[in-house]
Amino acid sequence: MTKGIQLGRQSLFFDKPVYIMSSACIVGPKEGEGPLGATFDRVVEDAAFGKDTWEEGESEMMRQTALLAMQKANLKAEDIRYLFAGDLLGQLIATTFGLMEFQVPLFGLYGACSTMGEALSLGAMTVHAGYADTVMSVASSHFGGAEKQFRFPLEYGNQRPMSSTWTVTGCGAFVLSEENGDAAITGITTGRVVDYGVKDSLNMGACMAPAAADCIYHHLMDFGRVPGDYDRIVTGDLGSVGKEILCRLLRDQGVDITGQHMDCGMEIYDDPEQDTHAGGSGCGCSAVTLAGKLLSDMRAGLLGRILFVPTGALLSTVSYNEGQSVPGIAHAVVIEKRG
Amino acid sequence: MTKGIQLGRQSLFFDKPVYIMSSACIVGPKEGEGPLGATFDRVVEDAAFGKDTWEEGESEMMRQTALLAMQKANLKAEDIRYLFAGDLLGQLIATTFGLMEFQVPLFGLYGACSTMGEALSLGAMTVHAGYADTVMSVASSHFGGAEKQFRFPLEYGNQRPMSSTWTVTGCGAFVLSEENGDAAITGITTGRVVDYGVKDSLNMGACMAPAAADCIYHHLMDFGRVPGDYDRIVTGDLGSVGKEILCRLLRDQGVDITGQHMDCGMEIYDDPEQDTHAGGSGCGCSAVTLAGKLLSDMRAGLLGRILFVPTGALLSTVSYNEGQSVPGIAHAVVIEKRG
Repeated sequence: MTKGIQLGRQSLFFDKPVYIMSSACIVGPKEGEGPLGATFDRVVEDAAFGKDTWEEGESEMMRQTALLAMQKANLKAEDIRYLFAGDLLGQLIATTFGLMEFQVPLFGLYGACSTMGEALSLGAMTVHAGYADTVMSVASSHFGGAEKQFRFPLEYGNQRPMSSTWTVTGCGAFVLSEENGDAAITGITTGRVVDYGVKDSLNMGACMAPAAADCIYHHLMDFGRVPGDYDRIVTGDLGSVGKEILCRLLRDQGVDITGQHMDCGMEIYDDPEQDTHAGGSGCGCSAVTLAGKLLSDMRAGLLGRILFVPTGALLSTVSYNEGQSVPGIAHAVVIEKRG
Repeated sequence: MTKGIQLGRQSLFFDKPVYIMSSACIVGPKEGEGPLGATFDRVVEDAAFGKDTWEEGESEMMRQTALLAMQKANLKAEDIRYLFAGDLLGQLIATTFGLMEFQVPLFGLYGACSTMGEALSLGAMTVHAGYADTVMSVASSHFGGAEKQFRFPLEYGNQRPMSSTWTVTGCGAFVLSEENGDAAITGITTGRVVDYGVKDSLNMGACMAPAAADCIYHHLMDFGRVPGDYDRIVTGDLGSVGKEILCRLLRDQGVDITGQHMDCGMEIYDDPEQDTHAGGSGCGCSAVTLAGKLLSDMRAGLLGRILFVPTGALLSTVSYNEGQSVPGIAHAVVIEKRG
């Protein structure tokens, strides 16, 4: 048995690393046309993935991505002991219908766009404790389904302010194991709900930045590290507006991450060419950037250790229309090159 | 370090039990008038909990319940290392706004009405692995908010068929610890999504019964136990329609649980007096029955070992209106008297 060492208020250090045995990422056409297009395993031409609705399309994307991650690890569904998975749709229907056929015990998760961090954290905790040899962590989002649920149906053709982000159509899946892999999870910092009272559902970056700052700050304190101990500190989908707020909030606490910070939402589209405004967002944004660009850069020796911090805006149309703010949450995962 | 022993395909046995240090349950007026009324910690007269909306009321109920569970355990929020929590509202807004003030690292969960089982499972895994001394698992539901989200606003006054269930306004919270408690979690069986193709959103019992049967069957196989090894096998909210299906499905597999089976949904209201039809439902239904009646019966020596199996219907108005079925999921937790 190995030990998970509690650090500070929010963090765990894994004395035996949990390996990322395989990863897979599948995206829609717009993401394929962006700067990271070549790093994705599969770019699908039809954003509905051959189905009649965005929701069924997202499920099909999750199914294909999970299957691909298992194939890459040379595993069958019965080799996976637990699924830790979630998406942005109400009642996690993309997850339910997408992962049902594998018949693997499922922990359904909701952390808004931080779900990839939550799923990797719980997956790593489970493998490290010896509860499972292999688990799979999955998160996805879909532009069509998310706009319909959170804002306006696409057919409405609403105008989008410059602070708005574009929900990534994409899914990332990661097989975690005790044994093999060229990257590993060595620690986590679990986030709390942070609310600065921002009420603009079209400015998600501002809603999430305080939670990202809180999580990164406590991570560094808990682990006794400085930003320079990481090759990259990677937030999920703050976009250009949120990035600026994050860096300023941390600077106010005496932490300068400007040299290491990268935001997946600012990497995935080519703006203003692709007209997405403040960048990409959604659970899928950080998930496919990790499974694609970041892990391949790590395999190529370009990255040694990163802090992966998916960020979620706890937005609900109900609470929003009732005048509530949009709080944020973020979960940090330390990922290091191995082998 | 203690060991979590993997049993079969879906189960874990904890060689060192995880104690339920304290529990709390708060319910609305209708639940207070029901047969279990005297077992709840607090019955509130105003179902809106003094707030302007059902959603804010549910958050307030969660806040009060979590606080009460901590007070009973003589703990402060900073003593709780993780929260495992969820509710039925889209994007878990009851949880977000209800538990935010405690500033405890949060894993947001969605398992429909099985969430209490999911939260206790992950909480127990976390404590048993030594990742935390104490965690809190919380689940809630609210009749007003659930009807508005899933069916019709209350003002509409729709007729309810006899197979429909009544969402419990209630919240249960459990502090889990390595050390103390007169009840303990000694094992879990994590459920898979099971879909028998039922499409009736007003017959949740029929949607969930196959998942409950699958989870209970595999639990008994994995642990090498028979129904008689339990004083009660407790499902969450199948109601009278679902109960019959559950017992028949298990009988077809050679397992007879009729002597042990109890459904929280059938205990919480007095029908036909309270006019709830097929019984109670919602995450709160099993949560408050466990925190109230079941644990007090255990303390009184009336129960030695129970199998607690909250059951969830993965219903979404979106997938439902797109013609999809309502799959189910269930998570089983073994709870035994200690001390």
